[in-house]
Amino acid sequence: VTPQAQAPAPAFGRVAVLGVGLIGGSVAGALRQRRLAAEVVGYAPGDGAREAQALGLIDSAAGDVGSAVAGAELVVVAAPIPAIAGLLAAAAPALAPGAVVTDCASTKASVVEAARHALGEAFERFVPGHPIAGAERHGPQAARANLFEGALAVVCPQPATRTQAVDAVCAMWAALGARLVTMDAAQHDAVFAEVSHWPHAVAFALCGAIAAGGNALAARQFAGAGLRDTTRIGASSPTLWADILLDNRGEVLDCARRFGDELDAVVGALRAGDRDELVRRFEAASRWRGGLT
Amino acid sequence: VTPQAQAPAPAFGRVAVLGVGLIGGSVAGALRQRRLAAEVVGYAPGDGAREAQALGLIDSAAGDVGSAVAGAELVVVAAPIPAIAGLLAAAAPALAPGAVVTDCASTKASVVEAARHALGEAFERFVPGHPIAGAERHGPQAARANLFEGALAVVCPQPATRTQAVDAVCAMWAALGARLVTMDAAQHDAVFAEVSHWPHAVAFALCGAIAAGGNALAARQFAGAGLRDTTRIGASSPTLWADILLDNRGEVLDCARRFGDELDAVVGALRAGDRDELVRRFEAASRWRGGLT
Repeated sequence: VTPQAQAPAPAFGRVAVLGVGLIGGSVAGALRQRRLAAEVVGYAPGDGAREAQALGLIDSAAGDVGSAVAGAELVVVAAPIPAIAGLLAAAAPALAPGAVVTDCASTKASVVEAARHALGEAFERFVPGHPIAGAERHGPQAARANLFEGALAVVCPQPATRTQAVDAVCAMWAALGARLVTMDAAQHDAVFAEVSHWPHAVAFALCGAIAAGGNALAARQFAGAGLRDTTRIGASSPTLWADILLDNRGEVLDCARRFGDELDAVVGALRAGDRDELVRRFEAASRWRGGLT
Repeated sequence: VTPQAQAPAPAFGRVAVLGVGLIGGSVAGALRQRRLAAEVVGYAPGDGAREAQALGLIDSAAGDVGSAVAGAELVVVAAPIPAIAGLLAAAAPALAPGAVVTDCASTKASVVEAARHALGEAFERFVPGHPIAGAERHGPQAARANLFEGALAVVCPQPATRTQAVDAVCAMWAALGARLVTMDAAQHDAVFAEVSHWPHAVAFALCGAIAAGGNALAARQFAGAGLRDTTRIGASSPTLWADILLDNRGEVLDCARRFGDELDAVVGALRAGDRDELVRRFEAASRWRGGLT
């Protein structure tokens, strides 16, 4: 007798992904490709879910949030920040008993409050999450199943969060190739204002100033690798980033103040012809950047 | 009788390269590798020229500027801005009749004035140049013979410059694989303030603000591709860039003012919670960056 090859049971039953753009589409596609879920159903307003289905990212497209999450063991919310509270509110009455819910938003404090308000009793199974895998491209076409390989996935469990729910979400990210980090939500928002949100505002402002100046066309022609890299994230989605910056406004304005102080010092030294001061400041900057391996 | 293979005569006789770091070392190495010069002699203060010779970038290291340029048909000055006037002054009395001189500095107006002052009659054979091939690494070890392949090389001939000299310098850059652009020196300085000099100041300021803040270590740990790209040129040489920014101060301060206005508008909209204004500004920025292919 030849032993029959038997596929291992998938780690998850039905998984619902709400929002199937770059992040949600990649989560869905990776779950399918790795056979980690019995079924991946997607929901998105407009044509997004049908598009994701055509791209093979999801098994089926649900017409509304309730039918997407019905019977799902895991619900992954991967929508722009302003849509999250509404999606959670629409999902709440349809959640299966024991369903685990997580999100992928770039800010955490406001999402935690939205979930606390929308999910009621199910809040204890809500695991705030943030995979660090953004890109300047977006939409289902930008999704790819290997997006999270080697990426960081931050989870910010709350005091009320059940360990079982945290373990399920961590298992998903680990299975998708991500490295896991647990952080306090407030600390997350402060650190990501610094490393991601404010730098996007700076890149947008640098592009905006060039675009509005008299050298906008010549600047395109003569841009070298330096400007291309420095401004790359300035091509990101304007609405997505306006919402992230507004949502994390307190921390972002704190970064803005410190950046403004540094910039004023640089411009002041330049105006005064103070080479020593310029070199001193650039050395501190270069030393920090040099340590970023 | 078998016809004997005959190597074509090199395009240049003796070439002197003053300064053999990233740019000068790459020019020298490329001339040697492509057999474009009968001899490539290098000069640099300190151990630079011996290092360049050990790396195979130059045929020989001269002990002083005069012996480097003696008998050279082409002199390429590839030194930091503050060193250029002194190198030209030291080279002038030793220049061979008809020798063509060019430079590689990131700013052109001040270099033109330095050359006019230092070279006297030979100024008519001085061709201001700027290969767009900087990098955040520097020194002879960073040099590579293919650095200029596909890169832009800007030349800024003056009214007094002889066409013959311009042609010789253009022939060198073309032979090294660069695409040539002729520009007015003042226009060059305005455009490169915008696309290179000021963006370096912004990247240094962004790194400097992070380095001085409370999240400097966490920021290193959580930096994603966005921050890495946005700050990459913040690892550049502090002294080199302080000198470039100071040298092109007028144009750079003009960029600083326009960037400051854009940044103030972004921060003001953020503070006021004005999403429409943020989106409008980010859209203009993103549209400009999207056109940067």
